[in-house]
Formats: sequence, structure tokens, C-alpha cells
Amino acid sequence: AYHVDWDLTAAEKDGYDWFMRKEIFEQPRAVADTLLGRTDAEGRLLLDESSISAEELRAIDKIIVVACGTAFYAGLVAKYAIEHWTRISCEVELASEFRYRDPIVDARTLVVTISQSGETMDTLMAIRHAREQGAKVMAICNTNGSTIPRESDAVIYTHAGPEIGVASTKGFLTQVVACYLLGLYLAQVRGTKFGDEVAATLAELQRTPEAIQRVLDDLEVVHKLARDLVDAPSVLFLGRHAGYPVALEGALKLKELAYIHAEGFAAGELKHGPIALIDTDLPVFVVVPPKGRDQLHDKVISNVQEIRARGARTIVLAEEGDADVAAYADTLITLPKVPTLLQPLLATVPLQVFACELATLKGHDVDQPRNLAKSVTVE
Amino acid sequence: AYHVDWDLTAAEKDGYDWFMRKEIFEQPRAVADTLLGRTDAEGRLLLDESSISAEELRAIDKIIVVACGTAFYAGLVAKYAIEHWTRISCEVELASEFRYRDPIVDARTLVVTISQSGETMDTLMAIRHAREQGAKVMAICNTNGSTIPRESDAVIYTHAGPEIGVASTKGFLTQVVACYLLGLYLAQVRGTKFGDEVAATLAELQRTPEAIQRVLDDLEVVHKLARDLVDAPSVLFLGRHAGYPVALEGALKLKELAYIHAEGFAAGELKHGPIALIDTDLPVFVVVPPKGRDQLHDKVISNVQEIRARGARTIVLAEEGDADVAAYADTLITLPKVPTLLQPLLATVPLQVFACELATLKGHDVDQPRNLAKSVTVE
Repeated sequence: AYHVDWDLTAAEKDGYDWFMRKEIFEQPRAVADTLLGRTDAEGRLLLDESSISAEELRAIDKIIVVACGTAFYAGLVAKYAIEHWTRISCEVELASEFRYRDPIVDARTLVVTISQSGETMDTLMAIRHAREQGAKVMAICNTNGSTIPRESDAVIYTHAGPEIGVASTKGFLTQVVACYLLGLYLAQVRGTKFGDEVAATLAELQRTPEAIQRVLDDLEVVHKLARDLVDAPSVLFLGRHAGYPVALEGALKLKELAYIHAEGFAAGELKHGPIALIDTDLPVFVVVPPKGRDQLHDKVISNVQEIRARGARTIVLAEEGDADVAAYADTLITLPKVPTLLQPLLATVPLQVFACELATLKGHDVDQPRNLAKSVTVE
Repeated sequence: AYHVDWDLTAAEKDGYDWFMRKEIFEQPRAVADTLLGRTDAEGRLLLDESSISAEELRAIDKIIVVACGTAFYAGLVAKYAIEHWTRISCEVELASEFRYRDPIVDARTLVVTISQSGETMDTLMAIRHAREQGAKVMAICNTNGSTIPRESDAVIYTHAGPEIGVASTKGFLTQVVACYLLGLYLAQVRGTKFGDEVAATLAELQRTPEAIQRVLDDLEVVHKLARDLVDAPSVLFLGRHAGYPVALEGALKLKELAYIHAEGFAAGELKHGPIALIDTDLPVFVVVPPKGRDQLHDKVISNVQEIRARGARTIVLAEEGDADVAAYADTLITLPKVPTLLQPLLATVPLQVFACELATLKGHDVDQPRNLAKSVTVE
């Protein structure tokens, strides 16, 4: 296994105004590092540390991902890939809720915890509860030797390097990547994917740093948007499928940094309530699924039309060359073309930049938002 | 089985300004009707219609509740009771997401759908997909002979009577009750609860209409609150455990009717992001768990202290006699003492009334909110 050890002298801003912005721009590297050294000489995936046997992993009949905040949204993204690749049911739960609701957990349950710091108390309490019930715990963590990996049965480290900004950015992207590695590892161990299929998906993942870099090279439209919307009292975010957690994460970033009311919705829920909120000039970000997901793509386009017809300002994230969306987008943010399950790794980035930029323009302390701590070590 | 047939001449406002308000006040009766005639001569629970055998129900290894909007929140409430009583894993999914994400469903999955109208297209498409995969489908529905019950394997009808107001109220409460009946029925069939235990919980349920009536008899504080907050630009709602979906539903009602930004959070998530939103005078509703849930109760009280220390206006819903909360509540809404799992049937009611009243004061059409239809018959 490959380890990146932290060097605190690296924790400088490198000319950026905020650690957060520096960390946003480190994402191509952080994703690449998280993918580095994951295979043995025969090309088989490895975990960093594990006392869970292959037999035990083959016996797993349920996965519960447990996390808080941004890491919870990384778990929501991961659910799609894990279920799709392994055909094991995967639930995603808030750590603070999991512990106190008498969850159904046994020796055939794999509990996956996600925590950047490895010290998140809610998550740690969930781990202890899960292990008391006989479950195996797999930690996804950015901090070598922290409490959560030490109390878990196996670990995949994200190799994001130190994250100083309180609002997580490269933490989130590398958590998604680590969850995908876990999904592929389970698929390999259980035989639901052949070796060449695992290798092909791994190769796709390895191409994402370059695609993320392309997003970062083309942010003028996002900066302009932040200037235009600096006084917006609220912003909505819509997505479907793997784009739904992206919408939730985009909204959370705005809450954390700009202190404005921002909420993410599953686009299909719009007409079951939230559409009543749509008003003239309300900014609404919409994450459009890749064209390869035809039905979903077309449904989201029709959501964009609906909200635009009601006067909303539509800010559409769609893959390049998607000719269907341009007519309905007041602002269009294009994303490089990648497979459906990898789109969240790109679509999240402009939303991070938007929140960072908007908060900067509002004069907020981006790295230390009010009321928030980087690592929540109390329950 | 007992059926309540709808009489359209009953669909009058009976002196109320809005159908919604009339329906709020019909809730004790609607809940009582939904509980009526559910047992045979030996006191055993019955379903309204079912082609699913007891053997098939004993073989179920997973429940997925599928619904939209308010009905989805009813499903989130139900999850706690269903898992607690049956020890079967229960996931709750948005119908619009379920259908398109390649869900893991097979002949041992019970899909439970919740729809007031029985014509919700997203839910119907989810049913068709689930049955194609071999799953059994149990419908919870308020409309005899509608499409969803006809396409399902079993039905529990809510006996709420016609619901005219677009924002669901008695629909929600009776859906929770019907889900609880399903949970008890499964516990009876699978033997995870003895007959006397099922009867005891049923008796507790039968006492809730009286408790709901007590909430309805004591609304002065809620009316005053609506007058005070008529110009509030946004409102937050917090809850934990079964109070979390109550917070979500309280927020949805405000979105639907008052068109203001209202969001519900799991209280334990506060410090993982949303607490950055807490500002002077921001109104925050907090649903406090019954004192019987000591740990949860105390944690939520400490959340109330935290947000009040940051200047928020705290509106606390707590059971009567809860001496710990009074000191931290700018406004206290008391609820009759009931078992933990039944508290949502009471706590939701003042939130419905608040939304109805606030929208009325704002001059909105409460029964026909902008952009919304009562029954969403397109995908």
C-alpha cells in the first residue's frame, strides 16, 4: 500500500487567498494520489489495511455507509456505484441518526464510515455501536493513525493531503474516489465484475484528474455568476441520480460559506412541493445527467424548462456538446464528457468555486466560517 | 375490512376559511377512521386487500418504501417503527429516484408505496418496475379503486375522506397510521411481536385521536407565532429520530404555502454545516423527543441551547411537563405525552397550522398554492 505522509510546511496558501481555494485547485492531484498504488503486480485492487477476510466480504449482505455533513453526501454518491457494481444493498445514514435509532446490523453487515479527520465523534460512536452488533467496519479517512481507522477493521486512506479550509472540497472528491475503490474491490472479491472490467473502470477513474483540471481551467463563467448573484437571498440546486447528492453538496457549501439559504432537491420531487418556491429571478442550479442516460437527461431538461417558464434564473451544468440544454440555460457551465458515475467528480467543482467566490465577495472568512469547526469531536 | 366511501357533498368547508384548515381539524376523526375495523373476532390485524400470502410475508428480507413529497416523509417516519417492530431492514426512497437508479429488488423485497390519490405517476412507474423484478407491492392509499391499488398486490386504505387542500395534512397523518398498521401486521405474521403486544400498541394508536384533539384545542400560541413571523424570510426546522421527518414535513408545508425558504435538518447534523446559517432572530423550530428517550432528549436540548446562544429565536415543541426545555424556548408548544413512535402524529399538527396561518396572513391561496397540483399524474 502507498502512503502519503503529511508535511505541515506544505500547509501554506501558495499565493491563493484562501486555503479552500488552494485545496479546490489541488483536486486533480488529490484524486490522482488517492488512485495511486492501488493494484498489485497482477493488477488486482488492494486495500490499505484490512483484517476482514475475502470470505467475510463475500458473506456481506448489506452495506451501511455512515457519515456526517459533506462526507454523508460523498456516501450518497457512492451508493449508486456500490449497488450498481456489487448488487449489495447499500444504505447511507447520518452518523448522528444511525447510533440512536436501533439500526439493523449484524455480522453480515459492512459498515463503511467516511471521515476526513478520522476524529468525528458522531461517526466514532456509530462505529462502536456497529461493532458491538458484530458488524465489520471499513473506514475511509484522510488522516493516518487517527482514532476512526484505529477502531475499524479495514481502512482506505484518501490521499488528499492536509485539508485546512473548514468547508471540505478535496476531502469530498477523494472520499467519492475511495468509495469507488471500495465498490470495485468488493466487486472483484465477490466476482460481480471480471478483472478486465475492474481495470477498465479504474482506467476511467484515472482519467478524471485531467477532466477536473479542465473544469478548473475554465471558471470565468462561475466567477461572473458569483458577481451577479452576490446579493441573492437564496439559491436552489437540483439534480437526479448521482447528480442529486451533488445538488445537496452545492447547497451545503453555500450555507457554510455564504450563510444564505440554499437547498438541494431531487429534481423529480420539484412538482411534489418545492416548485412553489420558484419565483422570478430565483437562481436555480441544475445538474444535467450525461446524454448517455437518455431518460433521465430528458426529464431534467424538462425540469429546466418548467422552472424557467416560471421566471427562475437557470444555471445549468451539462456535459460539453449537449445541444439540448443551451436554449434553456441562462448560464451554462459545461463539463467534460465522462461516464455517468464519474460526473459528480466534475460537477461538484464549479459549485465549490461558486461558494468560495460568493463568500469572498461578501467579505466572509472562507477558511473559518462562523460557528463551524473543521473536525467535530463532540457528539 | 371496513371501507369509508367518499361523499362529495361532504367536501364543503363547513365554516372554515380553507379546505386545508378543515382537513387539519378533521385529523382526529381521520386517524380514528383509519384505525377502525382492523381486527378480526380474535383480535388479529387484517389488511384491506391482499394477494400476498403469510408465507410470502415471512420470506421478505427487505422493505423499500417508495413515495413522493409529503408521503415520502410519512415513509421516513414509518421506517423507525417498521424496523423496530419487525427487524426487517427498511429503506425509504423517492419514487422519482427509485425507478431510474437500478435498485436492488427481488422476490423477497416488499415495496410499500404511499400515495393519497393513488394516481401519482412517479410512484406508479416505481411499482411497475418493482413488480417486473418480482417484488411484492403493498399500497397505502386514500382512494378506493384508483390505479395504484389496482396495480398492487395488497392494499391498506387510509380512511381520511377526500382531501381537497393541495398541501396534504390528514393524508400525512393517516399514512403514518397505515404504515404503523402494516408494521404491526408484519410483526404479527412473522411472530416478532406477540398478540398482546400488537394489541397494546394498537390501543396506544387508538388513543392518539384524543391527543391530536388536545393539540387542536390549544393553538393560540401557534396563531400568535404566525402573526409575529409573517415577514420572516426563512425558517429552519430541527428534529432527531422520528422527529427528523417531522422537521422535514414542517419545512415542506411552509415552502408549499408561504413560499419562503424553510429547511428541515437532522439536529445532529447542525454542527456539520447548517449551524453557519444560524443568525440573530432566525426562527428555528425544534422538535424535542419525549423524555423517555433520555439521551436523544438531552442532545436536542443542547442543540436548542447552542442555537439560542447564537441569537436564533427558538420555537420548541416538547411534551407537557418537560421542565428542561422551558428555559431555552422563546416560544414553547406543548404536546400531550405519548410513546416515542407516536409523537410525530402530534408534533406535525402545530406545524401544519403554522403554515396554514402564515400563508393566510400573507394573503396566499392556501388551498391552491402556486405551481402545485393536488395529484401529480405526470412523471
